[in-house]
Amino acid sequence: MSVNGFGRLFRFATWGESHGPAIGALIDGCPPGLALSEADIQPWLDRRRPGASPLASPRAEPDRVRILSGVYRGRTTGTPISLIIDNVDARPQDYPPDAPPRAGHADAAYDAKYGLRDPRGGGRASARETAARVAAGAVARLVIPEVTIEARVIEIGGEIDEARWPALIEAARAAGSSLGGIVLCVTTGVPTGWGAPVYAKLDAELAGALMSVNAVKAVEVGAGFAAARAKGEDNAQPDFAGGISGGIATGEPIRLRAAFKPPSSVPALGVTGRHDPCVAFRGAPVIEAMVALVLADHKLLHRAQCGGRE
Amino acid sequence: MSVNGFGRLFRFATWGESHGPAIGALIDGCPPGLALSEADIQPWLDRRRPGASPLASPRAEPDRVRILSGVYRGRTTGTPISLIIDNVDARPQDYPPDAPPRAGHADAAYDAKYGLRDPRGGGRASARETAARVAAGAVARLVIPEVTIEARVIEIGGEIDEARWPALIEAARAAGSSLGGIVLCVTTGVPTGWGAPVYAKLDAELAGALMSVNAVKAVEVGAGFAAARAKGEDNAQPDFAGGISGGIATGEPIRLRAAFKPPSSVPALGVTGRHDPCVAFRGAPVIEAMVALVLADHKLLHRAQCGGRE
Amino acid sequence: MSVNGFGRLFRFATWGESHGPAIGALIDGCPPGLALSEADIQPWLDRRRPGASPLASPRAEPDRVRILSGVYRGRTTGTPISLIIDNVDARPQDYPPDAPPRAGHADAAYDAKYGLRDPRGGGRASARETAARVAAGAVARLVIPEVTIEARVIEIGGEIDEARWPALIEAARAAGSSLGGIVLCVTTGVPTGWGAPVYAKLDAELAGALMSVNAVKAVEVGAGFAAARAKGEDNAQPDFAGGISGGIATGEPIRLRAAFKPPSSVPALGVTGRHDPCVAFRGAPVIEAMVALVLADHKLLHRAQCGGRE
Amino acid sequence: MSVNGFGRLFRFATWGESHGPAIGALIDGCPPGLALSEADIQPWLDRRRPGASPLASPRAEPDRVRILSGVYRGRTTGTPISLIIDNVDARPQDYPPDAPPRAGHADAAYDAKYGLRDPRGGGRASARETAARVAAGAVARLVIPEVTIEARVIEIGGEIDEARWPALIEAARAAGSSLGGIVLCVTTGVPTGWGAPVYAKLDAELAGALMSVNAVKAVEVGAGFAAARAKGEDNAQPDFAGGISGGIATGEPIRLRAAFKPPSSVPALGVTGRHDPCVAFRGAPVIEAMVALVLADHKLLHRAQCGGRE
Repeated sequence: MSVNGFGRLFRFATWGESHGPAIGALIDGCPPGLALSEADIQPWLDRRRPGASPLASPRAEPDRVRILSGVYRGRTTGTPISLIIDNVDARPQDYPPDAPPRAGHADAAYDAKYGLRDPRGGGRASARETAARVAAGAVARLVIPEVTIEARVIEIGGEIDEARWPALIEAARAAGSSLGGIVLCVTTGVPTGWGAPVYAKLDAELAGALMSVNAVKAVEVGAGFAAARAKGEDNAQPDFAGGISGGIATGEPIRLRAAFKPPSSVPALGVTGRHDPCVAFRGAPVIEAMVALVLADHKLLHRAQCGGRE
Repeated sequence: MSVNGFGRLFRFATWGESHGPAIGALIDGCPPGLALSEADIQPWLDRRRPGASPLASPRAEPDRVRILSGVYRGRTTGTPISLIIDNVDARPQDYPPDAPPRAGHADAAYDAKYGLRDPRGGGRASARETAARVAAGAVARLVIPEVTIEARVIEIGGEIDEARWPALIEAARAAGSSLGGIVLCVTTGVPTGWGAPVYAKLDAELAGALMSVNAVKAVEVGAGFAAARAKGEDNAQPDFAGGISGGIATGEPIRLRAAFKPPSSVPALGVTGRHDPCVAFRGAPVIEAMVALVLADHKLLHRAQCGGRE
Repeated sequence: MSVNGFGRLFRFATWGESHGPAIGALIDGCPPGLALSEADIQPWLDRRRPGASPLASPRAEPDRVRILSGVYRGRTTGTPISLIIDNVDARPQDYPPDAPPRAGHADAAYDAKYGLRDPRGGGRASARETAARVAAGAVARLVIPEVTIEARVIEIGGEIDEARWPALIEAARAAGSSLGGIVLCVTTGVPTGWGAPVYAKLDAELAGALMSVNAVKAVEVGAGFAAARAKGEDNAQPDFAGGISGGIATGEPIRLRAAFKPPSSVPALGVTGRHDPCVAFRGAPVIEAMVALVLADHKLLHRAQCGGRE
Repeated sequence: MSVNGFGRLFRFATWGESHGPAIGALIDGCPPGLALSEADIQPWLDRRRPGASPLASPRAEPDRVRILSGVYRGRTTGTPISLIIDNVDARPQDYPPDAPPRAGHADAAYDAKYGLRDPRGGGRASARETAARVAAGAVARLVIPEVTIEARVIEIGGEIDEARWPALIEAARAAGSSLGGIVLCVTTGVPTGWGAPVYAKLDAELAGALMSVNAVKAVEVGAGFAAARAKGEDNAQPDFAGGISGGIATGEPIRLRAAFKPPSSVPALGVTGRHDPCVAFRGAPVIEAMVALVLADHKLLHRAQCGGRE
């Protein structure tokens, strides 16, 4: 129910603003007995971290995660797992309280909804929130060791040749602009039967999860939009369904694509600050985290309803 | 939480199999005092009905809805509204209990998940379930009179010229095949501020809702996949964001596109029965219903959290 | 979330007014493969039925349940189970639409909340709704065959000697009055470990479930109020904890008591109609149903989180 | 859904173990624009604090709360409010990891459920968790300024004369024993119409909330168990219904009683440590917090469904 939370059984909620003291994630419903320490989470955060790539934002956040509860002597206890990441490189002074809403950002929408907003770096709407998702996703991965999730950028600014991306991005940066991109996520090892029909369909929940990631504007499952141009007999082709049928995993690889728009934080729109010229790279680990979180939840959901049958 | 239900405050759940005695929807949380009778629901069902168009399935279902509760003297009472639609033209004898799973259908996935399944016409996985969505959506519309939702087919089999669609569809039917299509849904009148950030983002919930409709394989918001090929300054263009920013309605029209795959129930895949050669037409009213259901829920959600501020 | 629903995984919602066309229950999340037919539900309804005892209401409802979905060839399919019970002996003409709120009833509260109400026999607030709970509870019992639930009246009008109850009740009826009573419910066979800590404590959820039954004004677990007069060392006594510790089942019998107030529908308060002089008798099967529904949900919840550990 | 969370719209979840680094609460759905600082929360924590009374546990916790998110320049922003309280006086060394389950505690139940447990001072099952409830409750109070909630101890060890309590408690402590007690909570100012029928009844949710507090074994609404000995005409008496009818607030004071059992942590049961001889005193502010949390949620729930009617 909670608008800042996600999941039914393996459930998490995130909190924190971009330039507040910290951000965090609270995980509830994690199975007990799993080996878990900060070292299981940190590598995923490092991969998402701003400043990790010369092509990304220069904000220098170490993103050190601490586990505050739910783990005893290196094992999950089944009680809530509280994760916290301090905001070390916050610069609230960059954002005066009376700054007008920035073009292309959620500032005006937050103002309209809430009547006020934390203006420092986008506040709650900042992509910084996705660090908490990645931390939670790292725990979710431990729940589904049978599953492998791999997301990667397959297109930047309409270009699929990786070798040309650095030049494209540098040109966009130099022009005070930015670029969009497409991320492909392939998930293997999902057992047949995970998922659910009708409203909790696995593809519906994955689509919602991916669309909840900042800057994502479109999601495809399997053949995606190409399916609209296919014929009935193409349903029998490999990868057409994308590993999900009737909302239930078929055992085939689950194939998803997400389209990231170009960031609005560009000088061309009059916005200054430390920003990525293309968020798809940092978006890929977030996509993976969301897929892990949906699948961990559905593993438990399937075990709940169908775990007792012979 | 329930896998066959949807929504938080304006909540509905559906039930029923394609060839059981009836299907239905149960709506909870509807505001009291709304004028409601069967006549408010029936026209939407008629629009979705099989047999309503020469291009659609020949199954002859009158789809008469009855209201069993929650309405007194023509007004909603705030208690649950139970809607029922009898299955009149059910032909369970067409589906022997030991029929093998059909190619391209959810039959095998249901078998894997549950160990058994109602094989009669797809059972619960049948698109017949969408009649219950349309009925619930008709009630949702009454909750959001300020909103106008219009979905229409804009492409069939890769063809955008409407005049060529009948011939395309007839050719597909004659060939024992079927066609996919794309539906565009434009929603106007959504007040600025509806929606929510992070996990209950309006675009995320709409994407999940649309992807839960049978045969939908991709969803776009605003510029959609084109955004991945755009530049930062394009964020300022009309329709680029699609009426949602940071998960919150901006007051601009909300623009969504959904890709329907071609039905698998085709002789080319060895499946017989009474089926549509293209489900996008009947899918359009279902898309509208899902949008209405998401928006009714978010109207109440927004009023709950922000309705008290000056 | 839905206010007319209950449960997380084994979830049900009820609908219907006392003098509408029917009442019903919609069950979602039931495990597949369970043998289920109307014959598994009807005996529990018969036990609750008005008119089943000379001490109870003379309303003559056959309370025949029909299963409309979710069962195929005598087995649950894992999809929603829709149960319907027609209102045969409804007499809407007994309740004029402009009738003022009745003393001691929810009429005025409904008016205040919703601005209108179905006045026919209490509408949604009628104890008739509990028939739908009993029907759903009968399905819940199939999910927890290891558990035995037995509720019985142990006190009527302050009198614990059963032999004196008929005379007490007749005297109350003759005086235009009514009596309260206490129901004890003892549940055995609940495996150690079912339940959950903190907010989903088994005792908290059972207390909420019992307090949701019409006319219940108090609930005790184990020693109950007597615990407030006990000493620390009494914690070691049998039955003191009532089979639940820290919100989790200990494997001992779960002992609950519920206090039913006397019905308000008495000539002494100026209310006429066909009513029970003491609802505790008919309340006992409803208490059993609620316990079954809570436990079925917690069985699945426990299996979800802890079902994978060795 | 989450087992460590509570509420639908004004929702909170707590985390943390008694002797871990910290405990906390995460609040979601708080209306925006409310004045909030640590100074609004701290007094309620001080009232609950161990060591605040010579009659209570000598654990010396300052219980300083910090707000980590959701507040900007002294106003709630509508985004999640993360509250943290460091565990300053934790003494994990008092609790060896291989300590056997303590009699009368949840230790064995946690072992049975999860296969392992944090043994330090009860871990998650410790009453220390209630500090997080009190902190969240302080925020909930800001949402319902029209409401006044007052809980107080009315009975200790069967004794209602306050003057005798100190001697009783000292005698229990000296004997290595402990005492139970009863808390009365009277809530005024709840507008007519808050609450909901059937499964989200206000009394049902309050009963569940109170029973979720450590050591509570029974809950009464209005006349409570006395109602079981009353007659039909008593329904018209003041305070009989306890301010709730059909699950909906009547506008009268809401009267609740909760029975606290004597703590199990007594030398008489072989348990050593720093513990309260009677937890009812510290339980009273927790009861108030839970009532505030339920009412804040129902205020929003009522506004959502019925806030639009004239």
